[in-house]
Formats: sequence, C-alpha cells, structure tokens
Amino acid sequence: MIKKINLCIVGLGRAGRFHLDSINQLDSCTLKYVVDPSLSSNDNIVSENDFILLKEIEQALVDQEVDGIIISTPTQFHFNCICQSLKAGKHVFTEKPLGKSAKEIKICFDLAQKKGLALFLGFQRRYDTNFIELRNTIEKIAKVRTVKMSSRDNPKPSLSYLKISGNIFHDMLIHDFDMLLFLMGYKIPISVFAYGHAYDPEIKKIPDFDTVLVTLKYADGLICSIDTSRTAVYGYDQRIELFGEKGMAIAENQKNNTVQVHTIEGGYQHPINYSFPQRYKEAYREEISDFVKGIQAGRHYNIPKKQCLLGHLIADAAHESATTNSVIDFQEKYQKELC
Amino acid sequence: MIKKINLCIVGLGRAGRFHLDSINQLDSCTLKYVVDPSLSSNDNIVSENDFILLKEIEQALVDQEVDGIIISTPTQFHFNCICQSLKAGKHVFTEKPLGKSAKEIKICFDLAQKKGLALFLGFQRRYDTNFIELRNTIEKIAKVRTVKMSSRDNPKPSLSYLKISGNIFHDMLIHDFDMLLFLMGYKIPISVFAYGHAYDPEIKKIPDFDTVLVTLKYADGLICSIDTSRTAVYGYDQRIELFGEKGMAIAENQKNNTVQVHTIEGGYQHPINYSFPQRYKEAYREEISDFVKGIQAGRHYNIPKKQCLLGHLIADAAHESATTNSVIDFQEKYQKELC
Amino acid sequence: MIKKINLCIVGLGRAGRFHLDSINQLDSCTLKYVVDPSLSSNDNIVSENDFILLKEIEQALVDQEVDGIIISTPTQFHFNCICQSLKAGKHVFTEKPLGKSAKEIKICFDLAQKKGLALFLGFQRRYDTNFIELRNTIEKIAKVRTVKMSSRDNPKPSLSYLKISGNIFHDMLIHDFDMLLFLMGYKIPISVFAYGHAYDPEIKKIPDFDTVLVTLKYADGLICSIDTSRTAVYGYDQRIELFGEKGMAIAENQKNNTVQVHTIEGGYQHPINYSFPQRYKEAYREEISDFVKGIQAGRHYNIPKKQCLLGHLIADAAHESATTNSVIDFQEKYQKELC
Amino acid sequence: MIKKINLCIVGLGRAGRFHLDSINQLDSCTLKYVVDPSLSSNDNIVSENDFILLKEIEQALVDQEVDGIIISTPTQFHFNCICQSLKAGKHVFTEKPLGKSAKEIKICFDLAQKKGLALFLGFQRRYDTNFIELRNTIEKIAKVRTVKMSSRDNPKPSLSYLKISGNIFHDMLIHDFDMLLFLMGYKIPISVFAYGHAYDPEIKKIPDFDTVLVTLKYADGLICSIDTSRTAVYGYDQRIELFGEKGMAIAENQKNNTVQVHTIEGGYQHPINYSFPQRYKEAYREEISDFVKGIQAGRHYNIPKKQCLLGHLIADAAHESATTNSVIDFQEKYQKELC
Repeated sequence: MIKKINLCIVGLGRAGRFHLDSINQLDSCTLKYVVDPSLSSNDNIVSENDFILLKEIEQALVDQEVDGIIISTPTQFHFNCICQSLKAGKHVFTEKPLGKSAKEIKICFDLAQKKGLALFLGFQRRYDTNFIELRNTIEKIAKVRTVKMSSRDNPKPSLSYLKISGNIFHDMLIHDFDMLLFLMGYKIPISVFAYGHAYDPEIKKIPDFDTVLVTLKYADGLICSIDTSRTAVYGYDQRIELFGEKGMAIAENQKNNTVQVHTIEGGYQHPINYSFPQRYKEAYREEISDFVKGIQAGRHYNIPKKQCLLGHLIADAAHESATTNSVIDFQEKYQKELC
Repeated sequence: MIKKINLCIVGLGRAGRFHLDSINQLDSCTLKYVVDPSLSSNDNIVSENDFILLKEIEQALVDQEVDGIIISTPTQFHFNCICQSLKAGKHVFTEKPLGKSAKEIKICFDLAQKKGLALFLGFQRRYDTNFIELRNTIEKIAKVRTVKMSSRDNPKPSLSYLKISGNIFHDMLIHDFDMLLFLMGYKIPISVFAYGHAYDPEIKKIPDFDTVLVTLKYADGLICSIDTSRTAVYGYDQRIELFGEKGMAIAENQKNNTVQVHTIEGGYQHPINYSFPQRYKEAYREEISDFVKGIQAGRHYNIPKKQCLLGHLIADAAHESATTNSVIDFQEKYQKELC
Repeated sequence: MIKKINLCIVGLGRAGRFHLDSINQLDSCTLKYVVDPSLSSNDNIVSENDFILLKEIEQALVDQEVDGIIISTPTQFHFNCICQSLKAGKHVFTEKPLGKSAKEIKICFDLAQKKGLALFLGFQRRYDTNFIELRNTIEKIAKVRTVKMSSRDNPKPSLSYLKISGNIFHDMLIHDFDMLLFLMGYKIPISVFAYGHAYDPEIKKIPDFDTVLVTLKYADGLICSIDTSRTAVYGYDQRIELFGEKGMAIAENQKNNTVQVHTIEGGYQHPINYSFPQRYKEAYREEISDFVKGIQAGRHYNIPKKQCLLGHLIADAAHESATTNSVIDFQEKYQKELC
Repeated sequence: MIKKINLCIVGLGRAGRFHLDSINQLDSCTLKYVVDPSLSSNDNIVSENDFILLKEIEQALVDQEVDGIIISTPTQFHFNCICQSLKAGKHVFTEKPLGKSAKEIKICFDLAQKKGLALFLGFQRRYDTNFIELRNTIEKIAKVRTVKMSSRDNPKPSLSYLKISGNIFHDMLIHDFDMLLFLMGYKIPISVFAYGHAYDPEIKKIPDFDTVLVTLKYADGLICSIDTSRTAVYGYDQRIELFGEKGMAIAENQKNNTVQVHTIEGGYQHPINYSFPQRYKEAYREEISDFVKGIQAGRHYNIPKKQCLLGHLIADAAHESATTNSVIDFQEKYQKELC
C-alpha cells in the first residue's frame, strides 16, 4: 500500500478552500497543517476539519512528516514561500504566478531541480476533461492552422483583487497562454499583437483593461486569437476552437443540466456554469491528486520550466503590445529570456 | 427536351394553393386549369396567375392537353373525383384519403392500374429531407427494435374542419402510419393498442380525441409508439426516433434559424417551425415534382396500393382500440381486408 | 456541530461499493462496519479502508454506536435484513425492492413507523440533477398531457443477475414508475398496457423480456409511455419528455465532455455516459447524504409508503399485461392493495 | 397589379445562374435577355429557358422594355458595365466589386444618384435569415463589445479564379467587412491589424494568403476579429458571435438535415452545408427579389454608398497590414477617402 502524503496549505482563501475540499476527497493524502494568520480556532472551517492551524509556516517546514506545501497565499508572497519551502526540502504546489518576473520563475524551477523536489503549478484547466479531450482530438484535424479561444470571466472580481492581480494578461490570459502550450506543445510565436479596452472606469484607473483581444503568429503559419472579458453575465465562458487541415474541433461550455424547455417563446436551456468553481470543480481535485501522484512517483513537475517561462513572456509581450499599440516581434524582444 | 406536363388543380383551398406554388416553381409542368366553384376571376389568386378558372371539372377532363389532375377538394369529394379523372384518362395526384373505406381505396388503385395511369398520394412527409435521411441511416443501427414518433400539430385546426376530418386516426395519424411503412417497409402488425383523450370539450362532442397514443407490435418483436396532439404551442412537432441493435437514429424538428442568445436567464433559441407549411415547404414542391416525373417516366405510384391499404386499416384498428379500450388482434380482425 | 452518523453497509457488491465511495466523500458520516461473508481482510477494498469487516450483521446491530444500516445485499435478502435492522433500532437505507410483494413493502414501512426509524430507498434517479430540474420546470408547461420516458440500459447485465432480478418490470421499470411518481405526484392510473419482447434467447428462457413498452392512462387524460431495453450500445440512455398545455420539457442524456469534431464525414461527439455509475455518480452520493440528513433531522423517508406501494403495483400490472396481452383495469384489479 | 420588371443578366457564370434561378422563381420579374459571348443557342441552359441570348449588351441597353441589368461578369468588367448600364438609364444589380478603387466605387454611386437609378450590390449575406435574426437580437445583449466572425470557404476556388480575384481581402473578407457594417451600423475603425499566411504554394506565388486573421478596434472600445480560410473540409463555415454587456448572441452554421445517429462510436450528424450555393440558396433569391422591389418602390440602394466605400477601405487597410506586418491607423491613412 502506497504511503499517504501529508500536506500543508498556506493561505486558506478561495483557492485554498478548493484545495482543502480536494484533499478531503482524496484517499491518497492528508492535510496536517493550514497556515493562515487571519483564521482562529473558532472559525467553522477550522473546527469542522482536523488540520492544525498555524500562524507561521515554520512549524510545518520543520515537521519531518510533511511532504508537500500547497501555496495559495496572495500572489505577492508566492515567490518567497516557494523558495522557503523548497529549501526546507518540501515538495511544492503553487498557484500562479511563481514570481514577478521570468528571473524569479527560473530561480524557482532551478531550485526545485537542484533539490530534487516537485514544483507543481495550479493551471487547473489542464485537468479539465473537455480540454484534455480536445487535445486528444487534434490528430483527427491536424495540422492546426487557427486557434480561437474565448475566456470570459463571471462575475467580475472585486476591485481590491484586481488592483493586486498584476494585470489582465498575467492574471487571466496567462491561463489561456498556458492552454495554448498545453494544446499545441512548446511553440514560440514570432509575433504578438493585442487590443485592450477598459469599460469599467475603476479598472481603467488601475490602469488595466477589462476586455482584450490577443493575436499570435507562429513561423509555420499558425495564427491564434484569444478574447477575454472580466465579465460575462451569461456565465463562465471558456471555449476553444481549433481549425485544421482536416477539420475543426471545439470544446464547448458546460451546462448545469440537460433540461430543455420549449414554449411559444422558443427553446430555453439553463445558463452555462456560473463561474470557475462550477466549471473546474473536478479539475481542482485532479490537480491536487496529480501533485500527490507526482510526489509518490518522483515526477517533479506538471508544467515544464520552459513552458511556464514562455507563457509568462507571452503575457509580457501582449501587455506591451496593448499598451503601446504596436506589433511585438517576439523573437527579437523576448526569446532571449527563454534561455 | 422533355415535354412539359399540363396540370389541373381541383380545389384551391390551403392544400391546393401549396400545389399552385409548387407548379409555379417547377419548370417541368404548367397549370392550365383550376376548378373551384368558390372562386371568381376577381380574386387576386386568379388575376395574378395564368390558369383558366372553371366551375366544373368536365372541361378539363375533355381537354386532350391536360395530363394530370391534382385533387385537393374537401375530403368527401376525393373518391368520385379520382374515379372520374382516371376514367377520363388523366393521371391523378390526390390528397388523402382516397375514399372512406378499404374498398374504395382498392377501387381507385385497381382503376388506375387497369387504365395504365398514375395515382399519386399527397403523403408529403415521404419527401421531407429529414425523414429521407433517417431512412438512409437505418442500416447503421439495424435491426430496429423500437420506433417512437411524435406528431403534434400546431395550431389546432378549426372545429368545422375537425368535424369533417374523419377522425384523428384517419386525418392525422394516417401520416404517421404511412411514415412507419416508409421507414420500415411493408410490415403487418400483429397487435394494435391506443389510448385517446379529448381535452377540448368541442372535440369530445364530435366525438373525437385531441390527444392519442398508439402502440403497435409486430411478429418479429418490433414495438412502435406514436403520440399525437391536435395542438403544440411551441410549434409543429414531428420527430422520429429509431432504436436498433447497433444504435439509435433521431430526426429532430427544424428551426427557423440558427441563432442562439445567451443571457443571465440562460440559453435561448427561436421556436421550431410554426406549422406544416414551414416544415414541409420543400416537401410539397417535391411531391408535385415527383408526380410530374412519374407521368413522364411511366411510373404509376409513389405509395404502393398495399401500403396505402395497410395504413388505412391500421388507422381503423387504432380507432377501434381507443374507442373500445381493447387490444386489437390485427391479423385476426383486419388482415383479410389487405387482399 | 452536528454529530457524525455511523453506518454499516451490508453487502459490498456493486451498489455497496458506490455507497462506500459516497460515505468516504461525505463529512457527515462514518463507515464503521461492512458485512459481507464473501470478503476477507486481504482484499484491497478492506485493507485500503478503515471499516471493520464482519461475516454476520449481528455485531453491528448490537453496537450502540451504529445509527444506520445500508442494505445492498442480493435482493432476496432485503426484506429480512430490513426487518432485522429496524427491530434492532437502526435506521435503514435499502436498495429496492423492499420485498417480494406489496404485503412485505407494507410490513417494512409499518415497522419503521412503529419504531420511529428512517426507512430510505435507493431510487437514485430522484437525486439526478437533470430530473430534479425537469420537475422544477413543470409549472412552465403545465398541465402535462403526455409523458414519454426512455430507459435503456447499457451494458446488458449478466444472465446470472437477470435470473434473480425478479423481472424487467420490477428490476428496471420500477425506477421509471418511481420517476413518474416523482414528477407527477401520487396519481393512480386507470389503465395499464404493455408490450414485451425477448431478443436474447437466454432471457426468453428465464422467462423475461429485454425490450418493453409500457403505457398508462389516468382519469384526467394523462397518457404515459415508457420504453425499456436491457441494452443500448450507444450508452446509458435515460431521457424524459413532458408534453403539456403550455409547452414541452425534456431531460436529455449527459455527455462525457463537450467536444465536437467536424470533418468531411460530418459532426461528431463523444458517446453519452456509458452506464449508470457515470450518469448517477453524484446522485449516488446525494442519496446517502440525504439519508444521513434524514437521520439527523428526524425525517423518516425519502419516498412515502404509498408511492412505493403504487410503483410496485404498477410493475405488477405491467407484467400481467405484457404476459397476458391484455389491458389491465388498474383500479379494478390493483387499487385495493394500495390501502 | 404591379408591373413585372424586365431584366437582363450580363454574364451567365456561376453567379449568373443563381440569378437566373432566382428570376425563374419570382413572379415579380421576367428575364428578357442574357448577354454572354461564351454561350450558344444549343446550350441546354439557353434552350430550356425563354430568354434572348445576346453576344453584346447594346441591344438590351436600347430596349425600352428592359428595366434592370444584373451584372455577373468577371470582376474586371464590372465597373464599365455598371457605368454603361446606368448611362443607358437602366437600374443595376451587380456582384461586388463595383470597381478597382474607392474612386471607381464613388463614380458608380454618384452616377446612379445623378440618374435617379437603383444600384444594388450582391452582398447576399445581408439576406441570410440567420444573420438577419442575429441583427434583430442585438438589443437583447447590447452594447456589443466583441465581434467574432468565422468565414471559411469550401471548396477552395480554382487557381485561375484566385489569380483574378483581387486578393483574399477584397474577394472574401469584403463580405465579412460588409457584415460588420450590416450588424453594427456605419462605424469607422480607428485601427486595423491582420495576420496572413499561405499554406498553398500556388496561392503564395500569386502572391496572396489563404488563411487570415483580421482584427479591428473602434473608438468606443469595440474589438472585432475575423478569421478566414480558403478551405474548410467540413463544409462552408460562416458563423458570427456577438458578445455584449447583457449577453452573447451566436449565428451558427446550417445543417442539411436534423438527423442524429448515436452508436458505440458516439453521436454523429451530417456535415454542415457544403458550400455557399447551399447556405445562401434563399438569400440569392431574396437579393434579386429586393432589387425588383427596389425598382418598383423607387428605393435606390440596398447598401449605402458610404458603407460600400468603408468596406472597401477596410479591405485595403487589412491588406496593407498583413503585407507590411504593421498596425494601420485607419483614421490617419484611410478616413479621408471616405468623403
């Protein structure tokens, strides 16, 4: 029988609570600690679960029983927390981003490699059953010539979150750039161009965009477009369309149920999934399950260093394009940072 | 170049006007006469078209230029009109029914055969592109074990029409029984059973049903169900589902357009086709085109005599079952009339 | 904090393992015992879980810590096991059937009531999100005039199971009759009629049917049809269509993912859910969760005695109809047993 | 009764034959002449129809009975033919383009206006029932923030056609730019950017692209993307998605029929419409019908001059962007030509 993996969650906000649920559902791991200075032992989430609540991470890091740290703190603490955990000999699962820059991303991966530890990233869409199936269908339509993604959030996040989120390219679109890498493999664009607009005056003031269209071109002819919105009242809209030489493949949104109602007004169906907790419910569990299996099997990443770096640099390039209204020659300006 | 076929329409009611439109759209035929005592030369439909308006059929029957008669009179005149036309040496296309009884149906077919003339029936659903495609898919799922049909009318016909329509079995379900024969071939049921109900008190008084479920069983195990309603507010609902050893095939309703609207209320589509003129628009033209081609090619029927008879007898049996609340042994009670 | 409920599963076959999984996923209950004479402590399912394995139920019944018994033995043992558990003061969740007859069903419910204990039935479809939503839409289309259900199993159960399953009416269709009660409320048919056929010669020998169509009529005009097959190669097919005065509502099958592939051959989607463990995965968890909540809240059933009895008697009537090829006057022949 | 309109078709190639069919189906007009030097009186299309075949247009232009000229010659002859017809006092319906340049487009419209004659353009998509319905739904989701169009041709046109087609921007995308104007009204972009690629080496040699992505931005924040391909093996793919503040509206492709087949391999549907004659069959008739009605009612255009000009200039800008790999400041470079 395989040993159960002991985990510690750092930061029990929204993402941390998904991870708590996932661990509760998995037989393969146990939650020993939660580090969160904002919680007390009287909080329901503490009293109804069996973990030990800590104010600081140190006790978990020195506990020999702890195998892995799950980092879901506010983003500005990710980098330090990752480094500290790896140095203490713990496997790490972290929400994105690893750090503020390509340099910090490299430091994290290099440290994990040097220590022989796992470094897993919370790009949960890679665990979505629809996108996995989409990737499996690519050979039926290959070679892919055009990729179109819709990635529209619902509901709009709070302004306080948006202010510390980096920007829409690093906070939202980073998932889409990662999905591009997941679907098409490691592939470096030659050109990146983006249009952005802020309908929300508060978002404009940050300054950030709430509506964006990013387009990319690759040397072999592949053209991609990704459109994003911070709000989509009809539900959480994440679809991908691949157009290839032999056909087209589409991953559609999920619906909450299969009921259709037909009246004199027409045909009606329930809205699509309301938001990401609904859409990625199972993906959130799968990503933790995969982290645990990775630890058990000595598999040390779910996203390779160079893919993680490339996604980050595409976000940089798209941000530069949208703010300068210029076409970015990716190979000239960003490719050197990939090394 | 093939000779154009000259036609005469008898009865320019709703069905007659479909046929007028069809002839106008077809290059292969010309409308020489319309017989309709209720029309005058001042009516728009007369002044805007080139046909000669007659009060009586005789002039058309003695005109050597006329090849075929299209009969769309009220149903009680069909039988006499068919016989008169065939005796005058004219090919006949007629709306159902041929007559009041199996005996009259036989007389019509036998007369047509004796005279070497075409006798075509207006079972327009056989020309519907969806049902044709459904029949083409049967081999992919064969052998068929269960057939389910929905046949729901919209809007409810007028009471005056319903009073002279025969009954729901001979007026509406006859199309579904014919579709069974079209899809499954000539196949005699061993048993027929039907439930009926009249929600509309006026229909109850006729007496007739407005809601019916007919079930049939065949010696090889095939089981069929057909549900009918005189009204379906969401549109004209005619669907068929075939369940077979290797799979299932479904012919769905048609929609007026492909637009979807997604809002906070959910996903919305236009209603399905409102009624039969929308759903069978092209089928109505195809049936007249097929009649013309039949005349040109010496092909003398679109529905064989024995299929026409069998459909009629199944309607008789279903009517008997629903009104007596008993299972009908079809082979014992009706099969002899097939000869 | 609400007390955790301690449970014992009797019979760790297919259904028992679903319940084991459900309990593992629920925070509100703990599995203390499993009774299954065919298991040993070396079996993986025993070593990987924390329950105490018993050969006989007695030890669990005398354990004061045990609140409820979940019965998933072969069907012939249900009745005795229910009675024994209730007499021992334990709440009971049981797979159907409660017993062989209406009499045994009554005994179970009366005993539960007398003892003030919960008696829950494993009609998992009542917990299916699609059927729940379907019920919620009824008022939009009411009043319902026609109900059509498809209930096609996949894959075909083993012959050894089929031999002890009772018959297709009590083993499969009982779920559909229960769904009728769930959707339409307690409503007694006036007439039942069924056609059945056995394509599989082994099933014919039992004797049983593998393909069935049941139709029911109610005094207010409502007509229902249910078609069943022991096999449906394209997947587990459970759909319901409600046709009402104001419209139509349909609960469609679920798909495994949302991917569409379009090639020169046409549009393609993955098969629907393969079988009931996929389709009712969440419903199986919800029914155990509901049992636990029922115990906690003093709510003593999920399906009322009279609904359970009525479903059973409809199955009796349908079986009688199909085997005698006659229309069953339900009120005359079965209604008295409802009391 | 309204006077029938007499028409002359110039050029009986593929488009010309659609117009011939349309006129045959319309009661409101008659085809008197066809001008096509490549046809002889022995050709089937001539012998089977009633028009007078001419080698030169002059006879039609001097015939007082002729009301309108339909121009479907090769594109290089459009401009002269339009001018000649208008000068002769004839109403004109013409396939795009009106001419080679914004200047020629202006000349045509100005001439038509001066002469008080109709000048209609064959942008048939404006008559497509799906796109009309899409436009009707805009208010439900307004204000629109993102427009996404797919416009993928099937099958690939012949190389000889492609060589004289202008380029993909003026030959294909011009329809999409026109659709943007149809849906969003007269709205001038501030910025245009395009990526293009030629997978087909023969198309590369022209030089032209076969795969293109055009993006546009407007001063109010609206962002549009249009992706095009000269080939789409799964059928003629023309879809539009509008994303707005209150929701999303989509016009999907049409299917040839509604049949679904479900087997162990999954769910299957027929391909979408094969090509534009299938998809726009009714639109082709509607555009001629609208031209005839325009003549009858004294309505002199279906697309206003300024919309036609703007579409042409957007095509120019997109072509410039794709060939120079630069963002085009539309207002600086092209807006002056709108006057």
